[in-house]
Amino acid sequence: MNIPKSLEWKNDSLWILDQTLLPFEFNYLKMDDAEGVWEAIKSLKVRGAPAISIAGGYGFYLGLRSYAKLELAAFKSKASEVYHYLNSSRPTAVNLQFALTKILEHIQKATNTNVDTLLNEILELAHQIYQEDLKICTALGENALPLIKEGMGILTHCNAGAIAVSRWGTALAPLHMASANGVQFTVYVDETRPLLQGSRLTAWELMQSGIDVRLITDNMAAWMMAQGKVQMVIVGTDRVVANGDVCNKIGTLSIAIAAKYYKIPFYVSCPSTTIDLVTKTGKDIHIEERAAQEITTIKGVPIAPENVKVANPAFDVTPHELVTALITEKGIHPYPYANELIHVKS
Amino acid sequence: MNIPKSLEWKNDSLWILDQTLLPFEFNYLKMDDAEGVWEAIKSLKVRGAPAISIAGGYGFYLGLRSYAKLELAAFKSKASEVYHYLNSSRPTAVNLQFALTKILEHIQKATNTNVDTLLNEILELAHQIYQEDLKICTALGENALPLIKEGMGILTHCNAGAIAVSRWGTALAPLHMASANGVQFTVYVDETRPLLQGSRLTAWELMQSGIDVRLITDNMAAWMMAQGKVQMVIVGTDRVVANGDVCNKIGTLSIAIAAKYYKIPFYVSCPSTTIDLVTKTGKDIHIEERAAQEITTIKGVPIAPENVKVANPAFDVTPHELVTALITEKGIHPYPYANELIHVKS
Repeated sequence: MNIPKSLEWKNDSLWILDQTLLPFEFNYLKMDDAEGVWEAIKSLKVRGAPAISIAGGYGFYLGLRSYAKLELAAFKSKASEVYHYLNSSRPTAVNLQFALTKILEHIQKATNTNVDTLLNEILELAHQIYQEDLKICTALGENALPLIKEGMGILTHCNAGAIAVSRWGTALAPLHMASANGVQFTVYVDETRPLLQGSRLTAWELMQSGIDVRLITDNMAAWMMAQGKVQMVIVGTDRVVANGDVCNKIGTLSIAIAAKYYKIPFYVSCPSTTIDLVTKTGKDIHIEERAAQEITTIKGVPIAPENVKVANPAFDVTPHELVTALITEKGIHPYPYANELIHVKS
Repeated sequence: MNIPKSLEWKNDSLWILDQTLLPFEFNYLKMDDAEGVWEAIKSLKVRGAPAISIAGGYGFYLGLRSYAKLELAAFKSKASEVYHYLNSSRPTAVNLQFALTKILEHIQKATNTNVDTLLNEILELAHQIYQEDLKICTALGENALPLIKEGMGILTHCNAGAIAVSRWGTALAPLHMASANGVQFTVYVDETRPLLQGSRLTAWELMQSGIDVRLITDNMAAWMMAQGKVQMVIVGTDRVVANGDVCNKIGTLSIAIAAKYYKIPFYVSCPSTTIDLVTKTGKDIHIEERAAQEITTIKGVPIAPENVKVANPAFDVTPHELVTALITEKGIHPYPYANELIHVKS
């Protein structure tokens, strides 16, 4: 059993797992230019903020490596072009922009006129972006690992998994690690309507790792808890704000409330970069409203009345008082953790 | 705008709304024999315990009306045959059995050798079954009507609607009535995975009645509450047991817990026949586990990994302490209502 890789640098090419085909086909796409990477990000073949930023880093190198013959000034100008091009694949992805900017700044500062050397440095920076994420995910997993006990039932929502990052995952990292250590447990995976990241990605990913999975519809989570089948919940997050409120995939709030009712610990796992101290509370977060068709159709098949009005918020906000502890690469931060966030972030 | 009818006796035939085609086709099927009714029940064209029992009553008449020439003894024997045949369409439907038994007992007791007259009495009994359900649903709606206020947001789950009964519905009865009275409000309809009764049936039914609908995935209910969009929840139930615990479609529990957290009233509406005083608590209810394909496919389209293990309980149990009040045809019974149930039932 193996933890699937979201992407891999191998034989001078970037290989990206095509997540749009999961769980029905398991296929890696070979990328040799920036255009391929741009398209893979745009079309969600690669997803998850860290995985996208890693792909972007390698994409930057791929977009420049055929220009080794250029003079430095022309090369820098080309680099600026590739930077803007790759950034346009997902303009809202802050991590992607951060990774690309890191590389661009290195290029702009370069004074060595040997472009071949500079290209090697760019590839090295891309490897670094991967390695830094791997370090964080490994720490996230190791920090949460003691929470995973033999025979437990663990509930998760959406996909905060290995295929969204370099390796291991964020929320799923301790599960993969525990399983690799021979610990036996069952994971209840919410299917995560409307886009079904739970059934398409998480259930598949955990099964690859040899973990015992029970796929459930989102509305079954509370009933699994009521029956004593769930001993902990662990989820990822898109943003933790200054007062400790947690923004994550729609449906997270519902699980957090049920966990509170049944006195089941509710953990949120994320890299410290996910902490946003500028936003004060969950109320200040703008929640993206997505297209109605995500609810009224599945894979193009209509399942609701034509012209029905829908609400389709992509995320919800779990108030901090429902979170048992935040887990970052720095450690486990039990509630109330808000005052601690400034130290975790720095 | 009209409240759709689940079935109707018209021009000496039974007309049944084909619910398997909803919400894409709105079509009534003409039934002139017991075989048609049997098939309609078996294939879920007609659904909802009361609607099935009404269909069964008319089906009984249809199965016998071509035997007017038989002598009484032979007619009685034929009646017993039709009784068993129709009962086999849904052996677990207690209401169906109750309706059929009522008619069979009348036939068995008959001494009048005029079979024509007896046939008229059978049709009259079928009408009575319809009228009794109509009386109950009307009372359910009128009892809950004062709860529905202008501008409210109301959340419901599954389909406890007009198309499951004679008319009006159980949980949805006050909504149809309030709308008919010109009250404006919004209903948040849970899609109700896995079988999507909310999106296929409830959203459609309420739209027919001119009600403002917002279809949501089940996992959005808590977030709608958090945003102050929901002022009450009303659902139906399959069984209320002696301590007041409520068995209903999977997902009901999750909503009840969220409603408690946000201090939103949670109402359960049902005919008093739904009260089961023999079963002591929710723990004593056997919950049906349904096929994995209901979760791993939608309309035949696979949406999960092959061979993934699932849990698929059809129902959950909401503990009585989460129920604000039970609504029956006798009135509104606020929590704690367990001691009152024996009087409501009788």
